[in-house]
Amino acid sequence: MRTSLCDRLGIELPIVGFTPSEHVAAAISRAGGLGVLGCVRFNDAAELDAVLSWMDENTGGKPYGVDIVMPAKIPAEGTSIDLAKHIPQGHRDFVERTLRDLAVPPLPDDTDERAGVLGWLHSVARSHVEVALKHPIRLIANALGSPPVDVIEQCHAKGVPVAALAGKAEHAVRHVDNGVDIVVAQGYEAGGHTGEIASMVLLPEVVDAVGDRVPVLAAGGIGSGRQVAAALALGASGVWMGSFWLATEEYLQTMGESEAMQRALVAAGSSDTVRTRIYTGKPARLLKTRWTEAWAAPDAPEPLPMPLQNLLVSHAHNRIHHAADPSVVSMPVGQIVGRMDRVRPVADVISELVSGYEETLSRLDKTR
Amino acid sequence: MRTSLCDRLGIELPIVGFTPSEHVAAAISRAGGLGVLGCVRFNDAAELDAVLSWMDENTGGKPYGVDIVMPAKIPAEGTSIDLAKHIPQGHRDFVERTLRDLAVPPLPDDTDERAGVLGWLHSVARSHVEVALKHPIRLIANALGSPPVDVIEQCHAKGVPVAALAGKAEHAVRHVDNGVDIVVAQGYEAGGHTGEIASMVLLPEVVDAVGDRVPVLAAGGIGSGRQVAAALALGASGVWMGSFWLATEEYLQTMGESEAMQRALVAAGSSDTVRTRIYTGKPARLLKTRWTEAWAAPDAPEPLPMPLQNLLVSHAHNRIHHAADPSVVSMPVGQIVGRMDRVRPVADVISELVSGYEETLSRLDKTR
Repeated sequence: MRTSLCDRLGIELPIVGFTPSEHVAAAISRAGGLGVLGCVRFNDAAELDAVLSWMDENTGGKPYGVDIVMPAKIPAEGTSIDLAKHIPQGHRDFVERTLRDLAVPPLPDDTDERAGVLGWLHSVARSHVEVALKHPIRLIANALGSPPVDVIEQCHAKGVPVAALAGKAEHAVRHVDNGVDIVVAQGYEAGGHTGEIASMVLLPEVVDAVGDRVPVLAAGGIGSGRQVAAALALGASGVWMGSFWLATEEYLQTMGESEAMQRALVAAGSSDTVRTRIYTGKPARLLKTRWTEAWAAPDAPEPLPMPLQNLLVSHAHNRIHHAADPSVVSMPVGQIVGRMDRVRPVADVISELVSGYEETLSRLDKTR
Repeated sequence: MRTSLCDRLGIELPIVGFTPSEHVAAAISRAGGLGVLGCVRFNDAAELDAVLSWMDENTGGKPYGVDIVMPAKIPAEGTSIDLAKHIPQGHRDFVERTLRDLAVPPLPDDTDERAGVLGWLHSVARSHVEVALKHPIRLIANALGSPPVDVIEQCHAKGVPVAALAGKAEHAVRHVDNGVDIVVAQGYEAGGHTGEIASMVLLPEVVDAVGDRVPVLAAGGIGSGRQVAAALALGASGVWMGSFWLATEEYLQTMGESEAMQRALVAAGSSDTVRTRIYTGKPARLLKTRWTEAWAAPDAPEPLPMPLQNLLVSHAHNRIHHAADPSVVSMPVGQIVGRMDRVRPVADVISELVSGYEETLSRLDKTR
């Protein structure tokens, strides 16, 4: 399982793993892939800096990358207090009523609560880039398409390639025109922000549209060696996996008290996800739970635009996380959740991808 | 490109092509695949009988199959006149108003109009089975899952294997338990009736669920050799293609005056489809046109259940077909429509699938 991407990024396997957990990211890099740490959870640049220093010491000298969330167009900006003025009271009342209906208790008084995820804000994402470029990162990926051109130039000046997610071929071409070095083609089946075109159709379209200009990674629906082989057959130079790492042992090392979430993921089938705007204001695939169902009810309000929706629900997310009820989880995950049937070490996941890939190629040999 | 399915069905290539056109079906069989003729357009069993006799003479002795539309549970039954009583006047008014808004003229007085598509009715589908079994067919496929067990037994008594579409692994297992011989795993990206799980995730799930009991065909998103290779990598024993044949020269030989529809398909991109209940009452993917957009507007009524919805719109379909306006087409098609960029002979499509498949396997070889 070796492609041109391996030489490009200095990795052994064309497996790029996106995760908010530094323990997972480091384990992916140590196992021969490229661990990509999601920065959106860091409101404080100093905190990100400390975690990247930890990465520098724990990847065994292997490459790693970071993922930021930066729209090319600058959306509403300001502190969470400024922005909060734009949230209608009816929406706040719905959230409060829903949490009560779902028996999600208030947080204990001594809980140190975060003030919403400010990583969605442009200024905060820019601080992530600046901090990350002080570390020996090998990739900056942007979850919302091309970052602004000056950010791309800043990365290139440090020799760091930039990857951008695309759900349509025309978006991919625009990213490359802006200077993006790697396109992540994210299919409908993927977790988190996702478009409507499934990977089987999207991948060859994106590959043909960008031609030889940049490599394409396949995102969405990857959790076995068969799926890696399918992605490479469709023309991808590697895979981008996000959901699958949520059910790893290393995830708990960073994200303590996530056992209820992991139980919910392990129990879920591939039909148990929903694509909805309730997480961030843009369509994103989440685990289907009593929380997403409440937002799908006829009396539920329309989700607010980004970044207001995430501010609206961030306190609810803290309460939901603390309640630890597997039926009321709020978590982005792809349709591959149906294959996440136990919690494993990262290295086991990767060695199974490699052996499954080799078996698949041997099976395909027999069709000639 | 050879799998166990080839021996099972007596074909050279594991490419099964579903089409309402006998000219297309015969051409697929002659080119080494298995042409499967859709029966739903035949209200009259004698008409189907004549067309199958034509198939017997025009497939060059190669195998072919038929496709019926038969729910395992018997739905509302009766003639179109009985059923028409259940259609609300508000729905009829909406259709009439929409056709006027879209400048779709009435049919000329001398048009020989069909009385709706009765192939959706159980009794009519049973007559299709009886007629088809008098011909040397090699497969009966059912577009709505398992046919009733007595129909399966009737086919087996004649040595004809039965295929059934499934959009979920548990449906596939149920089909096999009922005696179905081949499962067609139909992903979200497919045209016509389709579920919500994309092929990348659905295929290995269905393959694992049915194990060694039956072969699985991949339906949805297939239109190139890369996609055939991906489907086989995911564990399929072959592919089931439907949409792609709509843009062939042979299609016009059966379905005269479809040039406007073909122009619309050739112009469409992979984003230009929509999954909606307006065609039959069950979710089906259609080309997105001004007709589907009208049904998505806030003032549009909810589609009726099967079989009423198709009766409601069948006269409109005739008018739309006759109007020949590419912007007001009503046609089931999958996301692969983005790759249907010209009208070609069937044999060209198939030879490109084969050469693309071989190139893909050579490319994958280099990853070892």
